Amino acid sequence: MMKELEIRTSRRAEMVDITAKVHTAVSDSRVVSGVCTIFIPHTTAGVTINENADPSVKQDIMEFLEKNIPHRGGYHHTEGNADSHIKAALVGTSVAVLFEQGELLLGTWQGIFFCEFDGPRQRKIWLNITGD
Amino acid sequence: MMKELEIRTSRRAEMVDITAKVHTAVSDSRVVSGVCTIFIPHTTAGVTINENADPSVKQDIMEFLEKNIPHRGGYHHTEGNADSHIKAALVGTSVAVLFEQGELLLGTWQGIFFCEFDGPRQRKIWLNITGD
Amino acid sequence: MMKELEIRTSRRAEMVDITAKVHTAVSDSRVVSGVCTIFIPHTTAGVTINENADPSVKQDIMEFLEKNIPHRGGYHHTEGNADSHIKAALVGTSVAVLFEQGELLLGTWQGIFFCEFDGPRQRKIWLNITGD
Repeated sequence: MMKELEIRTSRRAEMVDITAKVHTAVSDSRVVSGVCTIFIPHTTAGVTINENADPSVKQDIMEFLEKNIPHRGGYHHTEGNADSHIKAALVGTSVAVLFEQGELLLGTWQGIFFCEFDGPRQRKIWLNITGD
Repeated sequence: MMKELEIRTSRRAEMVDITAKVHTAVSDSRVVSGVCTIFIPHTTAGVTINENADPSVKQDIMEFLEKNIPHRGGYHHTEGNADSHIKAALVGTSVAVLFEQGELLLGTWQGIFFCEFDGPRQRKIWLNITGD
Repeated sequence: MMKELEIRTSRRAEMVDITAKVHTAVSDSRVVSGVCTIFIPHTTAGVTINENADPSVKQDIMEFLEKNIPHRGGYHHTEGNADSHIKAALVGTSVAVLFEQGELLLGTWQGIFFCEFDGPRQRKIWLNITGD
């Protein structure tokens, strides 16, 4: 079963917690147990799973990426977002999350984050929910 | 359903667009909708999804990796390709792509790229195509 | 089918080969062919697939991460493991491995590695084994 989520990002670079949206999509699917594949159909955004308790973790991740892959650099791509493409390549465009009894199986401190690297924009998230 | 693709890379480091090959494999599988898992059975190559319109994006990604993970460095592995292993670890060896009606679901600007980090070589790509 | 593995790491940062454990779990599942999704339910650890022949490859990967994402840096997160979260975000928390006839399909030199970035700790690894 395929589902599409939409989000509106509000900054050039930010991590947006989409755990609740993914959880609702999985619950609504009526698939009891299986794997939810989360796919980002954009080339300047990604998806990752990390701590959702202390927001400074998101800040450290984004600052690390910005420091090592600066917005303005000696890039060949001339649209002003070469850094965004590189960040997306490192973070990745898909993750898999397991679920049982309609509940996402995540560790205590884990959340699922949409990673915006060239916003603010309207963005899509595609889900495939497979199982029994 | 499992499928194996083969490609011949032509440089030490390059991103090769394999979108059309993956698309053909999915269409030929007769599986209508589901998930195609793309797995690279090599330790000095990876796979990523990024922009397939402007080739300078590929160039920026590869130059970033080469600048930060140079071919010659103070490595312990003595085969001359320690950098290739590190690059593969960062980019990753598998991605998942959704499909419907036999068509890959990719964003407008997305292509699937085999990432060669220690070529030129003959390389394999393994696919699992699951769905209804 | 879901399975849980447990491991005990012995250092702050290390790559632990879990290939044999994953292989046993897949064999025991009696699922013949399909995909094993390996998910790490922690925010300071990851999973990757890379060379399992020469241990210096693991050393080079971990030293690269430590050099570029030092333990002590100007981080906002005050628990002393901001670097561990960033490393986990780059390496990733899930990988997919194909299998046939109950055997993992890995390249000649590939092993599956649990990546500890904030140990030593007791850690969990979750598997979903799907197929025919």
